[in-house]
Amino acid sequence: MTFGIDDLPVRDELRGKSPYGAPQLDVPVRLNTNENPYPLPEPLVERITERVRAAARDLNRYPDRDAVELRTQLAKYLTDTSGYEVGLPNVWAANGSNEVIQQLLQTFGGPGRTAIGFEPSYSMHALIARGTGTGWIPGPRNEDFAIDVEVAAQAIASQKPDVVFITTPNNPTGNAVPPGTVLALYEAAQAAKPSMVVVDEAYIEFSHGDSLLPLLEGRPNLVISRTMSKAFGAAGLRLGYLAAHPAVVDAVQLVRLPYHLSAVTQATALAALEHTDTLLKYVEQLKAERDRLVSELRTIGFQVVESDANFVQFGRFEDSHVAWEKILDRGVLVRDNGIPGWLRVSAGTPQENDAFLDAVRELKKEQST
Amino acid sequence: MTFGIDDLPVRDELRGKSPYGAPQLDVPVRLNTNENPYPLPEPLVERITERVRAAARDLNRYPDRDAVELRTQLAKYLTDTSGYEVGLPNVWAANGSNEVIQQLLQTFGGPGRTAIGFEPSYSMHALIARGTGTGWIPGPRNEDFAIDVEVAAQAIASQKPDVVFITTPNNPTGNAVPPGTVLALYEAAQAAKPSMVVVDEAYIEFSHGDSLLPLLEGRPNLVISRTMSKAFGAAGLRLGYLAAHPAVVDAVQLVRLPYHLSAVTQATALAALEHTDTLLKYVEQLKAERDRLVSELRTIGFQVVESDANFVQFGRFEDSHVAWEKILDRGVLVRDNGIPGWLRVSAGTPQENDAFLDAVRELKKEQST
Repeated sequence: MTFGIDDLPVRDELRGKSPYGAPQLDVPVRLNTNENPYPLPEPLVERITERVRAAARDLNRYPDRDAVELRTQLAKYLTDTSGYEVGLPNVWAANGSNEVIQQLLQTFGGPGRTAIGFEPSYSMHALIARGTGTGWIPGPRNEDFAIDVEVAAQAIASQKPDVVFITTPNNPTGNAVPPGTVLALYEAAQAAKPSMVVVDEAYIEFSHGDSLLPLLEGRPNLVISRTMSKAFGAAGLRLGYLAAHPAVVDAVQLVRLPYHLSAVTQATALAALEHTDTLLKYVEQLKAERDRLVSELRTIGFQVVESDANFVQFGRFEDSHVAWEKILDRGVLVRDNGIPGWLRVSAGTPQENDAFLDAVRELKKEQST
Repeated sequence: MTFGIDDLPVRDELRGKSPYGAPQLDVPVRLNTNENPYPLPEPLVERITERVRAAARDLNRYPDRDAVELRTQLAKYLTDTSGYEVGLPNVWAANGSNEVIQQLLQTFGGPGRTAIGFEPSYSMHALIARGTGTGWIPGPRNEDFAIDVEVAAQAIASQKPDVVFITTPNNPTGNAVPPGTVLALYEAAQAAKPSMVVVDEAYIEFSHGDSLLPLLEGRPNLVISRTMSKAFGAAGLRLGYLAAHPAVVDAVQLVRLPYHLSAVTQATALAALEHTDTLLKYVEQLKAERDRLVSELRTIGFQVVESDANFVQFGRFEDSHVAWEKILDRGVLVRDNGIPGWLRVSAGTPQENDAFLDAVRELKKEQST
């Protein structure tokens, strides 16, 4: 026996667990992690290079701990795209929305406290809860993956969680949560505790509907979390951010690691924000491709969840892992999120989506014969 | 009254607290955060630019989650400089050594567990303990800031902490901990629990002595933590790492946020590692300047703690905050770590150190008259 994790004095709840993460396989068509398939345009690559060169000349110094310029530009982006005005004091940024969520749970969750999410949803919420010692409550969804507002409000009222996660558009199912549901759950959460409500809008730029940013008005216990990984085509950058009441931004600074956001990350994100208009055009292309995936998958005969994201949940399979493997055999990597009967495919380029559609057409034929 | 942090449902232990961080003041000579005063050489700036340009072209994809190339090169650096062979499976990297320490505490500390550090020491150890729900035990040091091995071993035996921090060279006092002390405390920690021992070697490249890496042999509960912020002149990069038994590297992956290390961070760190030889020459210059600071400060009449780091703890002042302000009035920013009677100065360029020495000479004259 070699010495392994369980021979170390690790926390009991970590024993026997595996690290989170989709397989990073080298296949021709990767549609498994909701990445944006479009590489950054070359002028943006050059702008990143310029900004990083300048940052590198000062790299012996700590970065701006408060990331003032970056947060100002993120606030401007949110204001421009939502029509709801937020400023520097409303915005906080970190290494991916995962770190934003971790900071929120360290501040408002943690030992002796609980968080609820309506599952299936973004599984990192539960994992980061575990990592921060926050008790996790798996909340209910309907068969069609919608949140039943009365059932969910009842769960909040009875369990009194300290943090409520609402992912909209939801990952991995793709459907949006109606604003009325978010409002009702916010009210339920305030009546129960009061607790913080975190609306995870990682995929909001792909939605048919609008961001819930305007709901921040008069709701200091509401947080909207966002990311540059998807709409900005910058998964490799690891830049997540939140918008909320300034008191929330002050509060997370009590747990943030000082200088958490490197000078090169700040420089790269600022360059990308200068190219917002171009990047949002790719979003429009992806939305059209996403709509095509939904309609073609239905034509082929699959069940498809209505999607407001850059991915589509489709099924149903007798054994989704077997189906996942058969699609992989055809050179296309999709995601098996462990939801029995369903798989998730990210919207890629038209060519990638064609390859995927060909693969699942063949799969369907095989199944019918 | 405006709505503030305390109106939010934050954790009780955060109420009334302030965020960690030295004042970021714009003064001519900044010697307060142990930054390396030498900007990166221009060929390295260009190499960073090249590597980041390549990374930016693939930025729509998630970064290498396991940072294999970077960890391989960090292992090579450790092997080359210590003579003790470590490889990819022994090394883990994160956004600053703060994130490394946070991951270690999430894995081996956390709710219901405790960590000990011998104070005064790097204050983030205690703050990250708080942020991860780990109980903090302030361990003892002598008047001269050395760790008394018997007293410290006794504290470990009686308190049975889950994690033991040993910072060597110590921050903010600058003195190194003898290898024999580390070994004795490791043994005490194994006998008591067993617990993990984290040796924080952030400043080891500036030491008169050697890294404790060879102590890893046969000690799977030992972790050596390092950073590129100081010796590599890359505080803005936020790249910390650890070396340990492969099981430790496996274990922290259970709590690390997936894709925590951005593609631009990995690219920049790799470029810096290519220029190790040049950067280590700056370290030699800084060591000489550090030795000069120690000797000049003593000549001026200050008490000085022996330093193995790129900074010097000096005193004693009746009121160190007043002294801090008087030095600041002369355009030089040093660090008041709240240790009564003492201040800390980072070794800067020869010109910066001259400016500092002039300032404290004047201060001394003022005090004597």
